[in-house]
Amino acid sequence: MKVDFQDKPTDFPTSQVNGGPLKPVTQALLDRRATAHFRPEPVPDKYLEAILRFAAQAPSGYNLQPWRFVVVRDENNRRRLQKAAMNQAKVGEAPVVVIAFGIKGEWKSYMDEVFREGVRRGFGKADQIEATERMATEFLDEFPANVWLNRHVMIAFTTMMLVAESYGLDTAPMEGFDPEAVKKEFRLPPDAEVVALLAIGYAQIPDKAYAGRLSLRDLIHYERYDARRAS
Amino acid sequence: MKVDFQDKPTDFPTSQVNGGPLKPVTQALLDRRATAHFRPEPVPDKYLEAILRFAAQAPSGYNLQPWRFVVVRDENNRRRLQKAAMNQAKVGEAPVVVIAFGIKGEWKSYMDEVFREGVRRGFGKADQIEATERMATEFLDEFPANVWLNRHVMIAFTTMMLVAESYGLDTAPMEGFDPEAVKKEFRLPPDAEVVALLAIGYAQIPDKAYAGRLSLRDLIHYERYDARRAS
Repeated sequence: MKVDFQDKPTDFPTSQVNGGPLKPVTQALLDRRATAHFRPEPVPDKYLEAILRFAAQAPSGYNLQPWRFVVVRDENNRRRLQKAAMNQAKVGEAPVVVIAFGIKGEWKSYMDEVFREGVRRGFGKADQIEATERMATEFLDEFPANVWLNRHVMIAFTTMMLVAESYGLDTAPMEGFDPEAVKKEFRLPPDAEVVALLAIGYAQIPDKAYAGRLSLRDLIHYERYDARRAS
Repeated sequence: MKVDFQDKPTDFPTSQVNGGPLKPVTQALLDRRATAHFRPEPVPDKYLEAILRFAAQAPSGYNLQPWRFVVVRDENNRRRLQKAAMNQAKVGEAPVVVIAFGIKGEWKSYMDEVFREGVRRGFGKADQIEATERMATEFLDEFPANVWLNRHVMIAFTTMMLVAESYGLDTAPMEGFDPEAVKKEFRLPPDAEVVALLAIGYAQIPDKAYAGRLSLRDLIHYERYDARRAS
Protein backbone atom coordinates (compact mmCIF):
# COMPACT_ATOMS: atom_id res chain seq x y z
CA MET A 1 0.00 0.00 0.00
CA LYS A 2 1.31 3.42 -1.02
CA VAL A 3 0.74 5.62 2.01
CA ASP A 4 0.34 9.38 2.28
CA PHE A 5 0.40 11.22 5.60
CA GLN A 6 -1.36 14.24 7.01
CA ASP A 7 -0.46 16.68 9.76
CA LYS A 8 -2.73 18.03 12.45
CA PRO A 9 -5.53 20.23 11.09
CA THR A 10 -4.58 23.91 10.87
CA ASP A 11 -7.42 25.40 8.82
CA PHE A 12 -10.83 24.45 10.21
CA PRO A 13 -14.06 26.18 11.25
CA THR A 14 -13.81 27.65 14.74
CA SER A 15 -17.52 28.34 15.19
CA GLN A 16 -20.73 26.33 15.02
CA VAL A 17 -22.53 25.99 11.70
CA ASN A 18 -25.02 28.59 13.01
CA GLY A 19 -22.17 31.03 13.71
CA GLY A 20 -22.20 30.60 17.49
CA PRO A 21 -19.09 29.69 19.47
CA LEU A 22 -17.96 26.05 19.39
CA LYS A 23 -19.66 24.10 22.18
CA PRO A 24 -17.43 22.83 24.99
CA VAL A 25 -17.49 19.03 24.93
CA THR A 26 -19.46 19.10 28.21
CA GLN A 27 -22.24 21.11 26.54
CA ALA A 28 -22.10 18.91 23.44
CA LEU A 29 -22.64 15.89 25.70
CA LEU A 30 -25.53 17.56 27.53
CA ASP A 31 -27.20 18.47 24.21
CA ARG A 32 -26.39 15.28 22.28
CA ARG A 33 -29.20 12.86 21.52
CA ALA A 34 -29.54 10.11 18.92
CA THR A 35 -31.50 12.12 16.35
CA ALA A 36 -34.49 10.22 14.97
CA HIS A 37 -35.33 12.44 11.96
CA PHE A 38 -33.18 14.82 9.93
CA ARG A 39 -33.88 17.81 7.72
CA PRO A 40 -32.41 17.70 4.21
CA GLU A 41 -30.05 20.72 4.39
CA PRO A 42 -26.48 19.73 3.52
CA VAL A 43 -23.54 19.80 5.93
CA PRO A 44 -21.12 22.44 4.57
CA ASP A 45 -18.05 20.80 3.02
CA LYS A 46 -15.59 22.64 5.26
CA TYR A 47 -17.38 21.28 8.35
CA LEU A 48 -17.49 17.74 7.04
CA GLU A 49 -13.82 17.87 6.17
CA ALA A 50 -12.92 19.20 9.63
CA ILE A 51 -14.98 16.45 11.28
CA LEU A 52 -13.12 13.81 9.27
CA ARG A 53 -9.70 15.38 9.86
CA PHE A 54 -10.23 15.58 13.61
CA ALA A 55 -11.56 12.01 13.73
CA ALA A 56 -8.29 10.98 12.09
CA GLN A 57 -6.35 12.48 15.04
CA ALA A 58 -7.70 9.79 17.39
CA PRO A 59 -5.09 7.59 19.10
CA SER A 60 -4.53 3.95 18.18
CA GLY A 61 -2.35 1.05 19.18
CA TYR A 62 1.04 1.42 17.48
CA ASN A 63 -0.51 4.40 15.61
CA LEU A 64 -2.00 1.89 13.13
CA GLN A 65 -5.26 3.87 12.66
CA PRO A 66 -7.33 0.98 11.30
CA TRP A 67 -10.50 3.12 10.91
CA ARG A 68 -11.88 3.57 7.40
CA PHE A 69 -14.98 5.52 6.37
CA VAL A 70 -17.31 5.58 3.41
CA VAL A 71 -19.03 8.97 3.27
CA VAL A 72 -22.48 8.59 1.73
CA ARG A 73 -24.24 11.76 0.53
CA ASP A 74 -25.87 10.80 -2.77
CA GLU A 75 -29.61 10.39 -2.27
CA ASN A 76 -29.89 7.07 -4.10
CA ASN A 77 -27.00 5.68 -2.12
CA ARG A 78 -28.58 6.79 1.16
CA ARG A 79 -31.75 4.93 0.14
CA ARG A 80 -29.67 1.83 -0.58
CA LEU A 81 -27.96 2.17 2.79
CA GLN A 82 -31.33 2.67 4.47
CA LYS A 83 -32.50 -0.68 3.08
CA ALA A 84 -29.37 -2.35 4.48
CA ALA A 85 -29.97 -0.62 7.84
CA MET A 86 -33.33 -2.04 8.93
CA ASN A 87 -35.00 0.66 6.81
CA GLN A 88 -34.30 3.35 9.44
CA ALA A 89 -35.75 6.62 8.10
CA LYS A 90 -32.87 8.73 9.41
CA VAL A 91 -30.44 7.00 7.04
CA GLY A 92 -32.44 8.16 4.05
CA GLU A 93 -33.06 11.62 5.50
CA ALA A 94 -29.66 12.74 6.82
CA PRO A 95 -27.51 14.66 4.31
CA VAL A 96 -24.45 12.63 5.34
CA VAL A 97 -24.20 9.07 6.62
CA VAL A 98 -20.76 7.66 7.40
CA ILE A 99 -20.13 3.91 7.21
CA ALA A 100 -17.35 3.15 9.74
CA PHE A 101 -15.41 -0.02 9.13
CA GLY A 102 -12.01 -1.66 9.27
CA ILE A 103 -10.25 -4.28 7.18
CA LYS A 104 -8.84 -7.35 8.87
CA GLY A 105 -5.09 -7.63 8.49
CA GLU A 106 -4.77 -4.43 6.43
CA TRP A 107 -2.25 -3.08 8.97
CA LYS A 108 0.31 -5.52 7.55
CA SER A 109 0.40 -3.59 4.29
CA TYR A 110 1.28 -0.21 5.82
CA MET A 111 2.71 -0.75 9.32
CA ASP A 112 6.27 -0.34 8.10
CA GLU A 113 5.42 2.95 6.35
CA VAL A 114 3.70 4.28 9.49
CA PHE A 115 6.69 3.44 11.68
CA ARG A 116 9.16 4.94 9.20
CA GLU A 117 7.09 8.13 8.95
CA GLY A 118 7.08 8.31 12.75
CA VAL A 119 10.89 8.15 12.82
CA ARG A 120 11.10 10.82 10.08
CA ARG A 121 9.00 13.04 12.38
CA GLY A 122 11.18 12.35 15.43
CA PHE A 123 8.97 9.70 17.06
CA GLY A 124 11.02 6.63 17.98
CA LYS A 125 14.35 5.49 16.58
CA ALA A 126 15.14 3.88 13.24
CA ASP A 127 17.06 1.00 14.82
CA GLN A 128 14.03 0.05 16.92
CA ILE A 129 11.56 -0.25 14.04
CA GLU A 130 12.26 -3.92 13.46
CA ALA A 131 11.77 -4.89 17.10
CA THR A 132 8.58 -2.81 17.36
CA GLU A 133 7.24 -4.45 14.20
CA ARG A 134 7.93 -7.89 15.65
CA MET A 135 6.14 -6.96 18.88
CA ALA A 136 3.13 -5.43 17.11
CA THR A 137 2.85 -8.38 14.74
CA GLU A 138 2.99 -10.86 17.58
CA PHE A 139 0.23 -9.01 19.44
CA LEU A 140 -2.02 -8.46 16.42
CA ASP A 141 -1.60 -11.88 14.87
CA GLU A 142 -2.99 -13.55 17.95
CA PHE A 143 -5.64 -10.96 18.86
CA PRO A 144 -9.13 -11.49 17.34
CA ALA A 145 -9.20 -9.08 14.38
CA ASN A 146 -12.90 -8.22 14.66
CA VAL A 147 -12.53 -7.29 18.34
CA TRP A 148 -9.46 -5.13 17.67
CA LEU A 149 -11.16 -3.36 14.76
CA ASN A 150 -14.34 -2.64 16.74
CA ARG A 151 -12.27 -1.34 19.65
CA HIS A 152 -10.27 1.01 17.46
CA VAL A 153 -12.83 2.16 14.93
CA MET A 154 -15.01 3.34 17.82
CA ILE A 155 -12.29 5.70 19.07
CA ALA A 156 -12.32 7.62 15.78
CA PHE A 157 -16.10 7.19 15.44
CA THR A 158 -16.80 8.69 18.88
CA THR A 159 -14.34 11.50 18.17
CA MET A 160 -16.17 12.23 14.91
CA MET A 161 -19.53 12.30 16.69
CA LEU A 162 -18.34 14.67 19.42
CA VAL A 163 -16.64 17.04 16.97
CA ALA A 164 -19.86 17.17 14.87
CA GLU A 165 -21.92 17.85 18.01
CA SER A 166 -19.49 20.57 19.11
CA TYR A 167 -20.05 22.24 15.73
CA GLY A 168 -23.78 22.32 16.53
CA LEU A 169 -24.69 19.49 14.17
CA ASP A 170 -26.95 16.61 15.18
CA THR A 171 -25.90 12.99 14.91
CA ALA A 172 -27.30 9.47 15.15
CA PRO A 173 -24.97 6.53 15.82
CA MET A 174 -26.36 3.17 14.65
CA GLU A 175 -25.52 -0.49 14.95
CA GLY A 176 -28.78 -1.72 13.41
CA PHE A 177 -27.69 -2.87 9.94
CA ASP A 178 -26.97 -6.00 7.95
CA PRO A 179 -23.18 -5.95 7.60
CA GLU A 180 -23.17 -8.28 4.59
CA ALA A 181 -25.67 -6.08 2.76
CA VAL A 182 -23.65 -2.94 3.57
CA LYS A 183 -20.48 -4.62 2.31
CA LYS A 184 -22.16 -5.71 -0.92
CA GLU A 185 -23.92 -2.41 -1.66
CA PHE A 186 -20.84 -0.26 -1.01
CA ARG A 187 -18.29 -2.68 -2.47
CA LEU A 188 -16.37 -3.14 0.76
CA PRO A 189 -13.72 -5.86 0.54
CA PRO A 190 -14.53 -9.36 1.89
CA ASP A 191 -12.32 -8.86 4.95
CA ALA A 192 -14.13 -5.66 5.96
CA GLU A 193 -15.66 -5.47 9.43
CA VAL A 194 -18.54 -2.97 9.41
CA VAL A 195 -18.63 -1.40 12.88
CA ALA A 196 -21.24 1.38 12.96
CA LEU A 197 -23.04 4.07 10.98
CA LEU A 198 -23.13 7.76 11.87
CA ALA A 199 -25.80 10.06 10.43
CA ILE A 200 -24.84 13.76 10.56
CA GLY A 201 -27.12 16.75 9.86
CA TYR A 202 -29.87 18.78 11.51
CA ALA A 203 -32.69 17.41 13.66
CA GLN A 204 -36.11 17.74 12.04
CA ILE A 205 -38.22 17.49 15.20
CA PRO A 206 -37.53 17.93 18.92
CA ASP A 207 -35.54 15.12 20.51
CA LYS A 208 -37.25 12.27 22.25
CA ALA A 209 -37.22 12.41 26.06
CA TYR A 210 -33.92 11.60 27.79
CA ALA A 211 -34.14 8.01 29.00
CA GLY A 212 -31.71 8.38 31.92
CA ARG A 213 -28.44 6.66 32.67
CA LEU A 214 -27.31 3.99 35.12
CA SER A 215 -26.02 5.60 38.30
CA LEU A 216 -22.29 5.86 38.93
CA ARG A 217 -22.90 3.40 41.76
CA ASP A 218 -23.73 0.78 39.11
CA LEU A 219 -20.97 1.76 36.68
CA ILE A 220 -17.96 2.61 38.81
CA HIS A 221 -16.01 0.50 41.25
CA TYR A 222 -13.17 1.88 43.34
CA GLU A 223 -9.83 0.06 43.57
CA ARG A 224 -11.39 -3.34 42.79
CA TYR A 225 -14.57 -4.82 41.42
CA ASP A 226 -17.17 -5.02 44.15
CA ALA A 227 -19.80 -7.63 43.31
CA ARG A 228 -22.17 -6.14 45.89
CA ARG A 229 -22.35 -2.85 43.98
CA ALA A 230 -23.46 -4.73 40.87
CA SER A 231 -26.10 -6.95 42.48
CA MET B 1 -29.80 -6.37 39.57
CA LYS B 2 -31.17 -3.47 41.58
CA VAL B 3 -30.67 -0.46 39.35
CA ASP B 4 -30.35 3.23 40.21
CA PHE B 5 -30.44 5.97 37.61
CA GLN B 6 -28.75 9.32 37.17
CA ASP B 7 -29.72 12.46 35.28
CA LYS B 8 -27.46 14.59 33.12
CA PRO B 9 -24.70 16.33 35.10
CA THR B 10 -25.72 19.76 36.41
CA ASP B 11 -22.92 20.61 38.83
CA PHE B 12 -19.50 20.20 37.22
CA PRO B 13 -16.30 22.22 36.75
CA THR B 14 -16.59 24.67 33.86
CA SER B 15 -12.89 25.54 33.65
CA GLN B 16 -9.66 23.64 33.23
CA VAL B 17 -7.83 22.35 36.30
CA ASN B 18 -5.39 25.26 35.83
CA GLY B 19 -8.28 27.75 35.89
CA GLY B 20 -8.26 28.48 32.14
CA PRO B 21 -11.37 28.14 29.99
CA LEU B 22 -12.44 24.62 28.97
CA LYS B 23 -10.69 23.64 25.73
CA PRO B 24 -12.90 23.23 22.66
CA VAL B 25 -12.77 19.59 21.56
CA THR B 26 -10.82 20.68 18.47
CA GLN B 27 -8.07 22.16 20.68
CA ALA B 28 -8.17 19.11 22.97
CA LEU B 29 -7.58 16.94 19.90
CA LEU B 30 -4.70 19.12 18.68
CA ASP B 31 -3.07 19.02 22.13
CA ARG B 32 -3.81 15.39 23.01
CA ARG B 33 -0.94 12.89 23.02
CA ALA B 34 -0.54 9.54 24.67
CA THR B 35 1.39 10.70 27.72
CA ALA B 36 4.43 8.54 28.49
CA HIS B 37 5.23 9.75 32.02
CA PHE B 38 3.04 11.37 34.67
CA ARG B 39 3.69 13.57 37.68
CA PRO B 40 2.23 12.37 41.00
CA GLU B 41 -0.20 15.27 41.70
CA PRO B 42 -3.73 13.99 42.24
CA VAL B 43 -6.67 14.74 39.95
CA PRO B 44 -9.16 16.79 42.04
CA ASP B 45 -12.18 14.71 43.00
CA LYS B 46 -14.69 17.08 41.41
CA TYR B 47 -12.87 16.75 38.06
CA LEU B 48 -12.70 12.97 38.25
CA GLU B 49 -16.37 12.77 39.11
CA ALA B 50 -17.30 15.07 36.21
CA ILE B 51 -15.20 12.98 33.82
CA LEU B 52 -16.99 9.81 34.94
CA ARG B 53 -20.45 11.42 34.84
CA PHE B 54 -19.93 12.75 31.31
CA ALA B 55 -18.53 9.42 30.13
CA ALA B 56 -21.78 7.86 31.38
CA GLN B 57 -23.74 10.15 29.01
CA ALA B 58 -22.36 8.31 25.97
CA PRO B 59 -24.93 6.69 23.66
CA SER B 60 -25.41 2.93 23.45
CA GLY B 61 -27.55 0.42 21.60
CA TYR B 62 -30.95 0.18 23.34
CA ASN B 63 -29.43 2.48 26.02
CA LEU B 64 -27.89 -0.62 27.63
CA GLN B 65 -24.66 1.19 28.68
CA PRO B 66 -22.53 -1.92 29.13
CA TRP B 67 -19.42 0.06 30.15
CA ARG B 68 -18.03 -0.53 33.63
CA PHE B 69 -14.97 1.07 35.21
CA VAL B 70 -12.62 0.29 38.06
CA VAL B 71 -10.97 3.52 39.22
CA VAL B 72 -7.51 2.76 40.59
CA ARG B 73 -5.81 5.44 42.70
CA ASP B 74 -4.16 3.59 45.56
CA GLU B 75 -0.41 3.40 44.96
CA ASN B 76 -0.07 -0.29 45.72
CA ASN B 77 -2.94 -1.08 43.40
CA ARG B 78 -1.39 0.98 40.63
CA ARG B 79 1.81 -1.03 41.04
CA ARG B 80 -0.18 -4.25 40.79
CA LEU B 81 -1.91 -2.94 37.69
CA GLN B 82 1.43 -1.89 36.22
CA LYS B 83 2.67 -5.47 36.56
CA ALA B 84 -0.42 -6.71 34.70
CA ALA B 85 0.13 -4.04 32.03
CA MET B 86 3.52 -5.00 30.58
CA ASN B 87 5.14 -3.05 33.40
CA GLN B 88 4.38 0.30 31.71
CA ALA B 89 5.79 3.04 33.97
CA LYS B 90 2.84 5.41 33.35
CA VAL B 91 0.46 2.99 35.08
CA GLY B 92 2.43 3.23 38.28
CA GLU B 93 3.00 7.00 37.92
CA ALA B 94 -0.43 8.38 37.00
CA PRO B 95 -2.60 9.43 39.96
CA VAL B 96 -5.62 7.73 38.35
CA VAL B 97 -5.83 4.73 36.07
CA VAL B 98 -9.23 3.54 34.90
CA ILE B 99 -9.80 -0.11 33.94
CA ALA B 100 -12.55 -0.11 31.30
CA PHE B 101 -14.42 -3.38 30.91
CA GLY B 102 -17.81 -4.97 30.29
CA ILE B 103 -19.49 -8.14 31.48
CA LYS B 104 -20.87 -10.58 28.94
CA GLY B 105 -24.61 -11.03 29.21
CA GLU B 106 -24.98 -8.62 32.14
CA TRP B 107 -27.53 -6.61 30.11
CA LYS B 108 -30.06 -9.41 30.73
CA SER B 109 -30.15 -8.56 34.42
CA TYR B 110 -31.10 -4.87 33.97
CA MET B 111 -32.54 -4.36 30.46
CA ASP B 112 -36.11 -4.41 31.74
CA GLU B 113 -35.32 -1.79 34.40
CA VAL B 114 -33.63 0.46 31.81
CA PHE B 115 -36.61 0.27 29.46
CA ARG B 116 -39.11 0.92 32.27
CA GLU B 117 -37.09 3.90 33.46
CA GLY B 118 -37.10 5.23 29.88
CA VAL B 119 -40.90 5.02 29.77
CA ARG B 120 -41.16 6.74 33.18
CA ARG B 121 -39.11 9.58 31.66
CA GLY B 122 -41.28 9.80 28.54
CA PHE B 123 -39.03 7.80 26.20
CA GLY B 124 -41.05 5.11 24.39
CA LYS B 125 -44.33 3.53 25.40
CA ALA B 126 -45.07 0.97 28.08
CA ASP B 127 -46.94 -1.33 25.70
CA GLN B 128 -43.89 -1.54 23.42
CA ILE B 129 -41.42 -2.65 26.08
CA GLU B 130 -42.03 -6.34 25.54
CA ALA B 131 -41.55 -6.15 21.77
CA THR B 132 -38.39 -4.05 22.16
CA GLU B 133 -37.00 -6.51 24.69
CA ARG B 134 -37.62 -9.38 22.27
CA MET B 135 -35.88 -7.49 19.45
CA ALA B 136 -32.90 -6.51 21.62
CA THR B 137 -32.55 -10.02 23.00
CA GLU B 138 -32.64 -11.54 19.54
CA PHE B 139 -29.92 -9.15 18.34
CA LEU B 140 -27.68 -9.49 21.38
CA ASP B 141 -28.02 -13.24 21.83
CA GLU B 142 -26.59 -13.86 18.39
CA PHE B 143 -24.01 -11.05 18.32
CA PRO B 144 -20.51 -11.96 19.63
CA ALA B 145 -20.48 -10.55 23.16
CA ASN B 146 -16.80 -9.58 23.17
CA VAL B 147 -17.20 -7.59 19.93
CA TRP B 148 -20.31 -5.80 21.20
CA LEU B 149 -18.63 -4.95 24.51
CA ASN B 150 -15.49 -3.60 22.87
CA ARG B 151 -17.58 -1.52 20.48
CA HIS B 152 -19.64 0.02 23.27
CA VAL B 153 -17.09 0.40 26.03
CA MET B 154 -14.93 2.44 23.64
CA ILE B 155 -17.70 5.02 23.14
CA ALA B 156 -17.70 5.85 26.85
CA PHE B 157 -13.91 5.41 27.07
CA THR B 158 -13.25 7.90 24.24
CA THR B 159 -15.76 10.31 25.76
CA MET B 160 -13.93 10.07 29.09
CA MET B 161 -10.58 10.73 27.42
CA LEU B 162 -11.82 13.80 25.52
CA VAL B 163 -13.56 15.28 28.58
CA ALA B 164 -10.34 14.84 30.61
CA GLU B 165 -8.29 16.47 27.83
CA SER B 166 -10.78 19.36 27.60
CA TYR B 167 -10.25 19.93 31.32
CA GLY B 168 -6.52 20.32 30.61
CA LEU B 169 -5.55 16.93 32.01
CA ASP B 170 -3.24 14.53 30.19
CA THR B 171 -4.21 10.96 29.35
CA ALA B 172 -2.74 7.72 28.05
CA PRO B 173 -5.02 5.07 26.54
CA MET B 174 -3.56 1.56 26.65
CA GLU B 175 -4.34 -1.86 25.27
CA GLY B 176 -1.05 -3.44 26.37
CA PHE B 177 -2.10 -5.59 29.33
CA ASP B 178 -2.76 -9.20 30.29
CA PRO B 179 -6.55 -9.35 30.62
CA GLU B 180 -6.50 -12.46 32.80
CA ALA B 181 -4.05 -10.87 35.21
CA VAL B 182 -6.12 -7.66 35.37
CA LYS B 183 -9.26 -9.71 36.07
CA LYS B 184 -7.55 -11.67 38.80
CA GLU B 185 -5.85 -8.72 40.52
CA PHE B 186 -8.95 -6.54 40.55
CA ARG B 187 -11.47 -9.33 41.21
CA LEU B 188 -13.40 -8.83 37.97
CA PRO B 189 -15.99 -11.56 37.36
CA PRO B 190 -15.10 -14.47 35.03
CA ASP B 191 -17.33 -13.12 32.24
CA ALA B 192 -15.59 -9.72 32.25
CA GLU B 193 -14.07 -8.46 29.00
CA VAL B 194 -11.25 -6.04 29.77
CA VAL B 195 -11.21 -3.48 26.95
CA ALA B 196 -8.66 -0.77 27.71
CA LEU B 197 -6.89 1.25 30.40
CA LEU B 198 -6.87 5.03 30.67
CA ALA B 199 -4.25 6.84 32.74
CA ILE B 200 -5.28 10.39 33.73
CA GLY B 201 -3.06 13.06 35.27
CA TYR B 202 -0.36 15.55 34.34
CA ALA B 203 2.48 14.96 31.89
CA GLN B 204 5.89 14.84 33.54
CA ILE B 205 8.01 15.60 30.46
CA PRO B 206 7.30 17.12 27.04
CA ASP B 207 5.34 14.90 24.67
CA LYS B 208 7.12 12.72 22.16
CA ALA B 209 7.07 14.01 18.58
CA TYR B 210 3.79 13.70 16.67
CA ALA B 211 4.08 10.64 14.44
CA GLY B 212 1.63 11.84 11.75
CA ARG B 213 -1.61 10.35 10.51
CA LEU B 214 -2.69 8.52 7.37
CA SER B 215 -4.03 10.97 4.81
CA LEU B 216 -7.76 11.34 4.28
CA ARG B 217 -7.11 9.85 0.85
CA ASP B 218 -6.22 6.57 2.59
CA LEU B 219 -8.99 6.73 5.19
CA ILE B 220 -12.02 8.13 3.41
CA HIS B 221 -13.94 6.79 0.44
CA TYR B 222 -16.80 8.68 -1.14
CA GLU B 223 -20.10 6.94 -1.92
CA ARG B 224 -18.49 3.50 -2.20
CA TYR B 225 -15.28 1.75 -1.34
CA ASP B 226 -12.64 2.43 -3.97
CA ALA B 227 -9.98 -0.27 -3.94
CA ARG B 228 -7.62 1.98 -5.91
CA ARG B 229 -7.54 4.54 -3.09
CA ALA B 230 -6.38 1.84 -0.71
CA SER B 231 -3.69 0.29 -2.91
